[in-house]
Amino acid sequence: MSPALRPVSSAAPPQRPRPRVVVVGSGFAGLNAALALAGAPVDVTLVDRDNYHGFWPLLYQVATAGLGPDDIAHPVRAIFAGHQNVTVRLGIVTQVDVEQHRVELDHGEVLLYDYLVLAVGSSTSDFGIPGVREHAFPLKTLPEAVHLRNHILTAFEHADSDRSAIPEGLLTIVLAGGGPTGVEMAGALSELIGTNLALDFRHLDVTAARVVLVEATDRLLGGFSERSQQEALSTLRNKGVEVLLGAPLAKVTADGVTLADGTDIAARTVVWTAGVRANPLASLLPGEKRRNGTVVVEPDLSLPGHPEVFVVGDVAAVVGGDDRALPQLAQVAIQGGRHAAGSILRHLAGRPTRAFRYRDHGIMATIGRQSAVAELPGGLKLRGTLGWLAWLAVHLVFLVGFRNRLVVLVNWAWNYVTWDRASRVILDD
Amino acid sequence: MSPALRPVSSAAPPQRPRPRVVVVGSGFAGLNAALALAGAPVDVTLVDRDNYHGFWPLLYQVATAGLGPDDIAHPVRAIFAGHQNVTVRLGIVTQVDVEQHRVELDHGEVLLYDYLVLAVGSSTSDFGIPGVREHAFPLKTLPEAVHLRNHILTAFEHADSDRSAIPEGLLTIVLAGGGPTGVEMAGALSELIGTNLALDFRHLDVTAARVVLVEATDRLLGGFSERSQQEALSTLRNKGVEVLLGAPLAKVTADGVTLADGTDIAARTVVWTAGVRANPLASLLPGEKRRNGTVVVEPDLSLPGHPEVFVVGDVAAVVGGDDRALPQLAQVAIQGGRHAAGSILRHLAGRPTRAFRYRDHGIMATIGRQSAVAELPGGLKLRGTLGWLAWLAVHLVFLVGFRNRLVVLVNWAWNYVTWDRASRVILDD
Repeated sequence: MSPALRPVSSAAPPQRPRPRVVVVGSGFAGLNAALALAGAPVDVTLVDRDNYHGFWPLLYQVATAGLGPDDIAHPVRAIFAGHQNVTVRLGIVTQVDVEQHRVELDHGEVLLYDYLVLAVGSSTSDFGIPGVREHAFPLKTLPEAVHLRNHILTAFEHADSDRSAIPEGLLTIVLAGGGPTGVEMAGALSELIGTNLALDFRHLDVTAARVVLVEATDRLLGGFSERSQQEALSTLRNKGVEVLLGAPLAKVTADGVTLADGTDIAARTVVWTAGVRANPLASLLPGEKRRNGTVVVEPDLSLPGHPEVFVVGDVAAVVGGDDRALPQLAQVAIQGGRHAAGSILRHLAGRPTRAFRYRDHGIMATIGRQSAVAELPGGLKLRGTLGWLAWLAVHLVFLVGFRNRLVVLVNWAWNYVTWDRASRVILDD
Repeated sequence: MSPALRPVSSAAPPQRPRPRVVVVGSGFAGLNAALALAGAPVDVTLVDRDNYHGFWPLLYQVATAGLGPDDIAHPVRAIFAGHQNVTVRLGIVTQVDVEQHRVELDHGEVLLYDYLVLAVGSSTSDFGIPGVREHAFPLKTLPEAVHLRNHILTAFEHADSDRSAIPEGLLTIVLAGGGPTGVEMAGALSELIGTNLALDFRHLDVTAARVVLVEATDRLLGGFSERSQQEALSTLRNKGVEVLLGAPLAKVTADGVTLADGTDIAARTVVWTAGVRANPLASLLPGEKRRNGTVVVEPDLSLPGHPEVFVVGDVAAVVGGDDRALPQLAQVAIQGGRHAAGSILRHLAGRPTRAFRYRDHGIMATIGRQSAVAELPGGLKLRGTLGWLAWLAVHLVFLVGFRNRLVVLVNWAWNYVTWDRASRVILDD
């Protein structure tokens, strides 16, 4: 049968080109936007500088040797393997042109879009405090967590063969910032040191090690209820963590930190969890920004004047019902990403978009073994073991990938039964 | 009760200082020497440059994204947590003085010994082939395996956005050396590419990727029976691996390799598994060395003229019954380490040492999913699925640490059921 005689029905129907959606960022916001568009009549390109989706709420577990780096990273391409309309691209966005509808990547590729979802997250901010960038360890990425784990474990190895530097802060870890990351790090560190490292370094007096949590305001866990804040404070102090409230940092040096009141703390390890600001990519967008660099968006999460551009997750200043910006939480990012996807589909269907409404699923922070604070919607507050079980369940459920979930569960169960933290290997970079 | 009135029995009895044993290296040989001395009336110091014992037979699994780096590394201090007479020291040995009985570490510490067990293993040898050191990836350490994994996955990411470099070898991987590591890498790589990466990179024709195994001699798996060699060859060729036998390398460049017969193969990834030689530390010892740098030892594994120094594992040239050196195998190292420990205890008891006799537990190599060759003592040869099950069981049993074993089992079961290789994350260093 010659081509000319082929029945019309078997030929490809003439197709309108499908709308192109570019999603930048495969964190909670971008990943969920792309997932919500999988199978929809659009062509999605998901761009990220890493080839994995990181489960950042557990990053502190990697930094404290409770989990291996691969346990909280899931390959993005694996997530979308079954979704024909989603293309994944590894690359760093260098330019966003909202007039020309184009995104440029570092390797020279240009992506043209009909809709753009910008979900590039936050980055570390030093608040202009001298020495933070040079001397403090950030804790925002997987390599940073591995690097910090190596550094802490190596300090104990050095102390084991030469105790002379201990008074100079060789075993002193200052955590700057009393938010969830600082509190969770402090709890996990005190357990790592008090149990595992105490056994590992029998000839070393690990009570000489100090974990110091410094917070500029007069409370831990800003945003939580006063009862949870008190619970976190007393739990950490019971674990031997030195918590300094109302203690802003003046500077960080190679030898330690200086507080605003002039106090010096000798410390070879300073972890900076205090400051986040919007990813610098936000500055490529036109329009108003908040002081922390976040992009002010319309109620439907679109960029003012650009109904085809959505800004979601930590990079967006989403104003809640009380006229205050929503916190930079995983849940806000997840729901925001889904809302942007929904708005694109409504737009394509010729229907008006709707305002984003955040459904509060609560907030939680763990403070070590069998202790956590959880504040659920409706005023339900859990703490202690119950809070910890809630935290465990929520984090397992949201961890992407069944295999990761299973391995993390094995690791946790192992840690729990044996008090072991099996990932305390120093993997040189 | 004043100190003067304290009964004599509670005072510490006057003690002869206990013999000091320094074990250098926490690989199979050193670890087993130290384990065999745990609880014995000696003070053991175990020195290694890393703080973990690596399970090197599975290193190729890390390089091919089947396991995470932490899965095959077990903290050495955790292994000896219950053994009071074993002290662990992180450090690089810079000097060994067998006359003065002293070992110097890079951080300046000096360890004095009554007995020394040198188990520093092997390192990569380039056989003098130009370009190997500059352009080929070695595969002897955990960071090297992670680096290679990153490199291979990144090559596919680059190819996905720009196909132009594929003919220049962007997706060509040359494995130099047809020993167990080369064969196992080839099998695992062909599966990684043919299943996972084929799904991950839907828009890329992964059949353009090439895995080329080049071997200087006319056979794979030297040391195995001819039947196993044939089995490995046909299995790899069925998997699409290009196996070139009798093909010595002339040089490696940034663009690929040149064979001795002048053939050029364009390849952006060249993995060098062909050459091992003794750790350069061997040269610090007096006495005869073999051409590959290994130390010639007495039948009881001691250094000639130094009955208090034992050289075991890959760094030793242990002559077997047929006057040939024993192969550099994990089992030889494990048994040698135990034998050295036993010799020290016999020496202390005033009894003569005995000649080391290697008990052959067989050799095995896996060639991918459900396929392996295993040659057990007594002439029993397994292949295919049965060989693979034997391989699986042996590797699980010997993997140090119950938690590692459990996590590796979960990972393997997951890989097996789903064909997934979940560790394919590019973790920048």
